[in-house]
Amino acid sequence: MKRFHHSSTDFQDMGLGTRTTGRGERMINQDGSFNVERRGLSYFEEKGIYHWVIAMPWSRFMLLLFGGYIVINLVFASLYMAAGLQNLDGMKAVSSGGKFLEAFFFSAQTFTTVGYGRLNPVGVLSNIIASTESLCGLMALALATGILYGRFSRPSAKILFSHNAIIAPYQDMTAFMFRIANQRSNQLIELEASVSFSFLNKNDHTKREFRNLRLERTKINFFPTTWTIVHPIDVDSPMKDFGPNDFIDHEAEIVILLKAFDDTFSQTVYSRSSYRAEEIVYGAKFTTIFGQNDKGIVRVDLHRINEHNLVELPVYEPDTIAEQESLSSLK
Amino acid sequence: MKRFHHSSTDFQDMGLGTRTTGRGERMINQDGSFNVERRGLSYFEEKGIYHWVIAMPWSRFMLLLFGGYIVINLVFASLYMAAGLQNLDGMKAVSSGGKFLEAFFFSAQTFTTVGYGRLNPVGVLSNIIASTESLCGLMALALATGILYGRFSRPSAKILFSHNAIIAPYQDMTAFMFRIANQRSNQLIELEASVSFSFLNKNDHTKREFRNLRLERTKINFFPTTWTIVHPIDVDSPMKDFGPNDFIDHEAEIVILLKAFDDTFSQTVYSRSSYRAEEIVYGAKFTTIFGQNDKGIVRVDLHRINEHNLVELPVYEPDTIAEQESLSSLK
Amino acid sequence: MKRFHHSSTDFQDMGLGTRTTGRGERMINQDGSFNVERRGLSYFEEKGIYHWVIAMPWSRFMLLLFGGYIVINLVFASLYMAAGLQNLDGMKAVSSGGKFLEAFFFSAQTFTTVGYGRLNPVGVLSNIIASTESLCGLMALALATGILYGRFSRPSAKILFSHNAIIAPYQDMTAFMFRIANQRSNQLIELEASVSFSFLNKNDHTKREFRNLRLERTKINFFPTTWTIVHPIDVDSPMKDFGPNDFIDHEAEIVILLKAFDDTFSQTVYSRSSYRAEEIVYGAKFTTIFGQNDKGIVRVDLHRINEHNLVELPVYEPDTIAEQESLSSLK
Amino acid sequence: MKRFHHSSTDFQDMGLGTRTTGRGERMINQDGSFNVERRGLSYFEEKGIYHWVIAMPWSRFMLLLFGGYIVINLVFASLYMAAGLQNLDGMKAVSSGGKFLEAFFFSAQTFTTVGYGRLNPVGVLSNIIASTESLCGLMALALATGILYGRFSRPSAKILFSHNAIIAPYQDMTAFMFRIANQRSNQLIELEASVSFSFLNKNDHTKREFRNLRLERTKINFFPTTWTIVHPIDVDSPMKDFGPNDFIDHEAEIVILLKAFDDTFSQTVYSRSSYRAEEIVYGAKFTTIFGQNDKGIVRVDLHRINEHNLVELPVYEPDTIAEQESLSSLK
Repeated sequence: MKRFHHSSTDFQDMGLGTRTTGRGERMINQDGSFNVERRGLSYFEEKGIYHWVIAMPWSRFMLLLFGGYIVINLVFASLYMAAGLQNLDGMKAVSSGGKFLEAFFFSAQTFTTVGYGRLNPVGVLSNIIASTESLCGLMALALATGILYGRFSRPSAKILFSHNAIIAPYQDMTAFMFRIANQRSNQLIELEASVSFSFLNKNDHTKREFRNLRLERTKINFFPTTWTIVHPIDVDSPMKDFGPNDFIDHEAEIVILLKAFDDTFSQTVYSRSSYRAEEIVYGAKFTTIFGQNDKGIVRVDLHRINEHNLVELPVYEPDTIAEQESLSSLK
Repeated sequence: MKRFHHSSTDFQDMGLGTRTTGRGERMINQDGSFNVERRGLSYFEEKGIYHWVIAMPWSRFMLLLFGGYIVINLVFASLYMAAGLQNLDGMKAVSSGGKFLEAFFFSAQTFTTVGYGRLNPVGVLSNIIASTESLCGLMALALATGILYGRFSRPSAKILFSHNAIIAPYQDMTAFMFRIANQRSNQLIELEASVSFSFLNKNDHTKREFRNLRLERTKINFFPTTWTIVHPIDVDSPMKDFGPNDFIDHEAEIVILLKAFDDTFSQTVYSRSSYRAEEIVYGAKFTTIFGQNDKGIVRVDLHRINEHNLVELPVYEPDTIAEQESLSSLK
Repeated sequence: MKRFHHSSTDFQDMGLGTRTTGRGERMINQDGSFNVERRGLSYFEEKGIYHWVIAMPWSRFMLLLFGGYIVINLVFASLYMAAGLQNLDGMKAVSSGGKFLEAFFFSAQTFTTVGYGRLNPVGVLSNIIASTESLCGLMALALATGILYGRFSRPSAKILFSHNAIIAPYQDMTAFMFRIANQRSNQLIELEASVSFSFLNKNDHTKREFRNLRLERTKINFFPTTWTIVHPIDVDSPMKDFGPNDFIDHEAEIVILLKAFDDTFSQTVYSRSSYRAEEIVYGAKFTTIFGQNDKGIVRVDLHRINEHNLVELPVYEPDTIAEQESLSSLK
Repeated sequence: MKRFHHSSTDFQDMGLGTRTTGRGERMINQDGSFNVERRGLSYFEEKGIYHWVIAMPWSRFMLLLFGGYIVINLVFASLYMAAGLQNLDGMKAVSSGGKFLEAFFFSAQTFTTVGYGRLNPVGVLSNIIASTESLCGLMALALATGILYGRFSRPSAKILFSHNAIIAPYQDMTAFMFRIANQRSNQLIELEASVSFSFLNKNDHTKREFRNLRLERTKINFFPTTWTIVHPIDVDSPMKDFGPNDFIDHEAEIVILLKAFDDTFSQTVYSRSSYRAEEIVYGAKFTTIFGQNDKGIVRVDLHRINEHNLVELPVYEPDTIAEQESLSSLK
């Protein structure tokens, strides 16, 4: 029985596991979702109705809304017919098809509580149905209000990521960098980044390894323009032995989690993304995208967020490193 | 007068106290509630109306809704009758029972603001009642909207726990483990676990003791699949002297608190659970539930979250421990 | 020019300042508000309309609602009259007073969108007014929905504080203690306490001093029953020289801030309170309020939260302290 | 390859960058927005519809509401006309202009669901249009409810900043100070400040430098009255070499970020502001704004938050500093 060495406090586990990805697949898709299939749960067990209705695209939501409206009116029109259409006062149609249609529209007038009143229920049964329907209509309105509010008020940090990450010269070494910008005019406050480096194990290519990348800085207070997130590739970096082809060979993927406070929605928001080996440019420098407009105010051109020039990287000198390593181990 | 030794910062008090459970009862039920009865407060003092209406089951909520609707209409129908039913214009019924029914339905038409208008109030008193009722109807709608939104938008981390916790081989020692999965497709971010070990005091069986269990890792950034939470049973572990029967004898219960950020609801969520002695399998290993589907994408089978094989645990060698303890105390 | 010694990180400033209280007044009232008057701001500047409407008592809110409803209908009735009451079709009244009343009720029918239709607008002007009014009615409903939701969904940690704080024997010294309980069945998670000791300066009685009280523990994970918050009065405690009368003489007040996560509302909640010198019982012990019901389940009796027995405190031995102090300073 | 020296943990990056401001422009405007122009995004891409509709001024919001209402009614009136106005039962107008107006008002009655019923649709086509319109009306109401709630419930910490920051005597050195007050009666809890000092680089005036200012205290628990935020200008302060004119010459700007928990809205709120060189008074002292009212309760006069008296600052003695610096470097 031994003493277990707990991982140091600054270790960050991305929670992706050694088996999360199939070969050749990226872990995190461009929209922030994961490349994982889950079995053993029904659709609604997995989603939850609220989540489902909040997250569906607007087009489908509209279809559902109008479809549901028609179905509800068909159901209630049938109920009114079952209760006897002679109990709907004020009908003008004479054919039974026309009468059903009038019952359908009466139902719509009741459900939306518009209640013109030319058509109106007479007798106990029709009145019970109509009273129930108008209550259902109000409840549906109450629900719709909550759902629409939920759909609109969901905060989403729209962070623009540079299409490529780069390996760039940095001080007298190199660094892994990518650039982000705030796509919305929402103020993002206290923006924090955590970046993890994932690659296939050298010896066992069915296993993935994960390393945390230490950043030049992990947090900024304001985010009005852009932020170039920098991981200096020093002797402690897990990237220090990765040459241009190593990223590809080890199916490297850099996974990014951003956290911020959105001042418009007054809520904490997260944003996820990842860079695959193919998206890393080895030897490049981001160009500035700052300018000044006529009034002397700083201008940022977000279209150029990925703009970079290819540059040569400082030569890798194994001897110097070894030397320095031994020196630093002496400290 | 002495100097008090404050508990170290990583100590976590679960807040359950030494007297929280009766003998033989579990502290935390499967639904996360506590086995405690509280006296001295009225029902509404304890619950708060909003909490009560938000947390009740849907079936009771619906019953309350329809029941309240009928009661309100009965009350207002009586008021219209008191004001004189001749002041409701457009009645077709002749019997007094029929007239009351028409007043009832008129009330429903007013409360839901459908207002067909065949029936309509004439005279000051009936109009005052009707104006008041329609205002009440709108307020009820406003309330219902808030309540329905509250009911639907309450985030709930649906974490699936393995039915059993296990004592498994781990590196060259053993570890206490259980496995969790995200039952929803909601993204849970920055998932944190704190696990506490509770057992009856060796000498005084009416008292419970609580110990914090140190985990292999306490936090993961993403939670797309599963997480096996591991407490290595090393020389510092409060479980180090617990054999297979000791858990039962001391009525052990392991209490778990999980905290995460739900990306769908943009809110912090918590999940509670516990394992009782009977639910701990001494000597087992979880089987992998990862696979790959046709497209090479990782597949997780949540039905098999509790799947484990029985295995033999490494033999406990008291001498080695004592030796090592004395060694480590020398450092 | 010197180097400023920054206060240690665990120092907590309550923000109450040395001049916050008048002589003989408590800083924090029982409801958590402060005994401070602010000048220089208009009522609405200070409150904000939303805060005002959310925080007012229900009785006043109801009055405002009905009062506003009557005023709005008076205004619109006047407008319909100005547009010519002959343009309201279907009137039955003949006197001008009766006609104004009918216009008033027509306005109510329009504002609440009940729209029976016996009364209905004819002509452009009346129609414009009616169209505007029904839109206003809908907006009012929308507003009311938000306000009612805001009023109901405001989380409030209802923490029950023992009426008295006590100085009790604790291990082989004494401790300052008070007991709290959760008055609601809401789950409070990760409950944190910070407690500050305020007293008049020995030499200058117009100035207040503040000291942070170190607690036996500052955080508990769950809060199903009660929590006795304990500040051990050791050699480092600012209370170590306070005898029974010193609390009164120095107008001592202990200020408490509690923070927790409310699992029902999914929100962080705070609770404030304070104990004044008169509320501190010097030499007492809280009695247990735990019992078991018939089924062996633990029962807590919240009525007895303040129950305590008077006890004698261990004698204060100055010599031992001095000795020990000199010892501890040697370390 | 070297080891990168990561910035110490207490370093705070404001995220404003070295190129954020044009010459002579302030970085943060009085309303907390930034002096930056962004290009490359359409208006709605940048804002998001919800943000746009939540943040617009009330006057524009009202205009949009009424304008939209008129446009919608014009559209539906045209549809009813296209379906044949003879299918709207109950018309009283005879001219085609008058008939269109009646269709317009019928549309309004349908959209707001007031539905008087004198005018009512006959025939399939008109009924379909009317059913659709009343559904649209309900959805618009649902939307408006969410938007109005969003507009009202947005928390905003209204922090009053003293118009000037001052350099004041402090203990036996000087300090940079400004004073803030809570403008609302909302309780702000756990108020935290972070303050950053920005100035043009001595050698390259096109570049800005940023330094974090260490504060006497960075957090207070309560904020009932005022808080004077103090940065002591000691040997470590980036302001230690700045005389009265240096602030102006280097276009200094002090950027402030405040964070607190608003107890009324139960949400975290942020407040931003900045002081420019011209707003710094070199050599001054804030006067007390505390008093007592008749009942002995403390009174704060917020009108006088900026009140300060000019004072002479202690003389700057370079020798003593140098001496002390060398001493402190010996430690």
